[in-house]
Amino acid sequence: MGSVNAPPALAANDLPPGYRFAGIACGLKASGKPDLALIAADQAVVAAGLYTTNQVVAAPVLLCRSRTPTDGVRAVVINSGNANACTGTQGEHDAMQMTQQVAETLGVPVESVLVMSTGVIGQTLPMDKITAGIGRVCTGLHHQQAAFHAAADAILTTDKARKVAARSLTLGADTYRIAGMCKGAGMIAPNMATMLSVVLTDAPLSVEAAQRVLAFAVRHSFNRVSVDGHTSTNDSIILLARQSEQPLDVLAVGQFQDVLTELCIELAKQLPADGEGALHVLQLKVSGATCETDAEQIARVVAASPLVKTAITGGDPNWGRIVSAAGIAGPKIDVSRTCLTILGVPVFLSGQPVAFDNVSLSQAMRAATLVDCELQVGDGPGEAVFWASDLTCDYVKFNSLYTT
Amino acid sequence: MGSVNAPPALAANDLPPGYRFAGIACGLKASGKPDLALIAADQAVVAAGLYTTNQVVAAPVLLCRSRTPTDGVRAVVINSGNANACTGTQGEHDAMQMTQQVAETLGVPVESVLVMSTGVIGQTLPMDKITAGIGRVCTGLHHQQAAFHAAADAILTTDKARKVAARSLTLGADTYRIAGMCKGAGMIAPNMATMLSVVLTDAPLSVEAAQRVLAFAVRHSFNRVSVDGHTSTNDSIILLARQSEQPLDVLAVGQFQDVLTELCIELAKQLPADGEGALHVLQLKVSGATCETDAEQIARVVAASPLVKTAITGGDPNWGRIVSAAGIAGPKIDVSRTCLTILGVPVFLSGQPVAFDNVSLSQAMRAATLVDCELQVGDGPGEAVFWASDLTCDYVKFNSLYTT
Repeated sequence: MGSVNAPPALAANDLPPGYRFAGIACGLKASGKPDLALIAADQAVVAAGLYTTNQVVAAPVLLCRSRTPTDGVRAVVINSGNANACTGTQGEHDAMQMTQQVAETLGVPVESVLVMSTGVIGQTLPMDKITAGIGRVCTGLHHQQAAFHAAADAILTTDKARKVAARSLTLGADTYRIAGMCKGAGMIAPNMATMLSVVLTDAPLSVEAAQRVLAFAVRHSFNRVSVDGHTSTNDSIILLARQSEQPLDVLAVGQFQDVLTELCIELAKQLPADGEGALHVLQLKVSGATCETDAEQIARVVAASPLVKTAITGGDPNWGRIVSAAGIAGPKIDVSRTCLTILGVPVFLSGQPVAFDNVSLSQAMRAATLVDCELQVGDGPGEAVFWASDLTCDYVKFNSLYTT
Repeated sequence: MGSVNAPPALAANDLPPGYRFAGIACGLKASGKPDLALIAADQAVVAAGLYTTNQVVAAPVLLCRSRTPTDGVRAVVINSGNANACTGTQGEHDAMQMTQQVAETLGVPVESVLVMSTGVIGQTLPMDKITAGIGRVCTGLHHQQAAFHAAADAILTTDKARKVAARSLTLGADTYRIAGMCKGAGMIAPNMATMLSVVLTDAPLSVEAAQRVLAFAVRHSFNRVSVDGHTSTNDSIILLARQSEQPLDVLAVGQFQDVLTELCIELAKQLPADGEGALHVLQLKVSGATCETDAEQIARVVAASPLVKTAITGGDPNWGRIVSAAGIAGPKIDVSRTCLTILGVPVFLSGQPVAFDNVSLSQAMRAATLVDCELQVGDGPGEAVFWASDLTCDYVKFNSLYTT
């Protein structure tokens, strides 16, 4: 999509103080692009994490799960180009090795280092390259936003564009900053987190509050986007926050949660926009479901249907595909109260088809980068918004020839 | 696929006696291709039916559900080119009207006529064309296999090839015949049945036995194929069998069930082989699951993943996509006991990657029309075989521009 090709960039004062960054190329990617990132905290910080619900879990995810939530994190090391997933005991050993080496080089406890990996599944890490790379990346840490961007670039795989976002939040006399990075662009249907994201803040949070606000924000952002409906083995998001004897109180945590959620939505929407081969993003609002979880499930199934995705690709107002996909999602829907609008045009009203101008709606769909659809499935209180890539020939071409 | 382009044909003695057939073009399809089929029984026959599990149910499905199972069916009228789905009360009226007109023309009770529709969703039937067509199709009924083929051709939509199969079964001194037809080729992930199939036999069955053997056969055939994972609003299969005071006994029904299942598998496998744009069929055998239902669910999710499908398209032995898809299917898997072979080549063994010749396996995958994968997910007794289309650019092109 044209709008996502210019790499987004943060300003100097978008970054919370207290963190340093580096990103380098250590030779994991044949292209020579950056593939090793390091985020370091000047002092121990609170870290909350959410990880993939896939039963096939990559080695770095196993390690992070065992080390979060905590109030004692000093660094996160991330490699792209290799997921260290389905790599058996060797993979677990390699993930541990990565954190040990970072810990020794930075002079911090091994338990204070987290690790994330993303890339191809089923190949063991070339540890010689990793080892040499960690030596270099540890010496290149800086506070500036250029370093933050270098780290954000080094976690990308098939992404065309860098994915970052920032927010600030003033509470009384204090202004806090939140900055985040994430990566796409395939095997994206996060469930409990997304394929690699790190969000950092100087706001003081308790471990419990950090985990709670992260879960809320992720539910409404990363867990509601999909490129291909395939939840990865490596999905991870980590929130780093300042440790303090006096963390934010309940009211302030609520305000922080709202801003964090906004930021996560901004990050998450960049995934389908830069989905492999994507031309359009489907923004699907489901309402009238029995509960929020039902609305989410209906949106997820509709957004995963290749028939729906290709209709969005071609600007084809073939609404029967959307309504029929809602019917197979599982949750109860009331067809006689089901209504659908596409870009504001009603096409199905209370279970009956509505006459509309097919040609002009098709033109509008083709012109839009964000195709907004609103599907009401009854008169219940449940609603959810979901964002998904369309499905193009470029997606097929790209994914037909990935490892070979 | 090359192998499915030549229309399969049945021999004269493949057809059970007692049925007549017709297929004509009544103008529903802009292409002028046949779009109206009629199957008539010389005497009242037993009819069992299985229908879509989609909550959005087409009008003809609602009508058939209310009239089966029964021992009093005389005719099944089927139109293609329009699904009569999401058409509200007008659609229900039109479906009823179709059966009334057939009943009047043939001089049989209205309740003895079943109706099926397939095609685009959300447009009301042009009843003037249907009415004229029913008048003509009722006068063109014949016993010959040419008439059977004309009917089988008239139920197709985006299919490239006719889909028919036949079996015979000798029980003591009696030989019975079973013949069936079905159609694909998009919105195919049948659940309880498939997008239109009719199977007929001269074997005498009770209503209960007919329904039972049909459910068994469909579970192991139509419910285990997928083109796009999108269960349609119109999926229906109807089994017609001879009515008799002395139906087959329990033992003979068991033998009949085996042969019927074979026939349904032969029909069902024609769906992904002729899936929209399909180049290869993935034949996925899942074993070692806790139970058969779990194995089926794992196979269904793996086969629906666009990442798996595109790997099959490109002959890419990117096995991490298959293993990781099994991990999100839901049922418990044991990663440490998980093994995968592609075309007989082990690529993942007891949770560890296996070295293999990437280039020669890729060549073999590209050359195969049926890509056979065996995935063991533990040491349980549950197993299931599933057949799915790959995902090609032609699928995307075709489905980007369907109604417009």
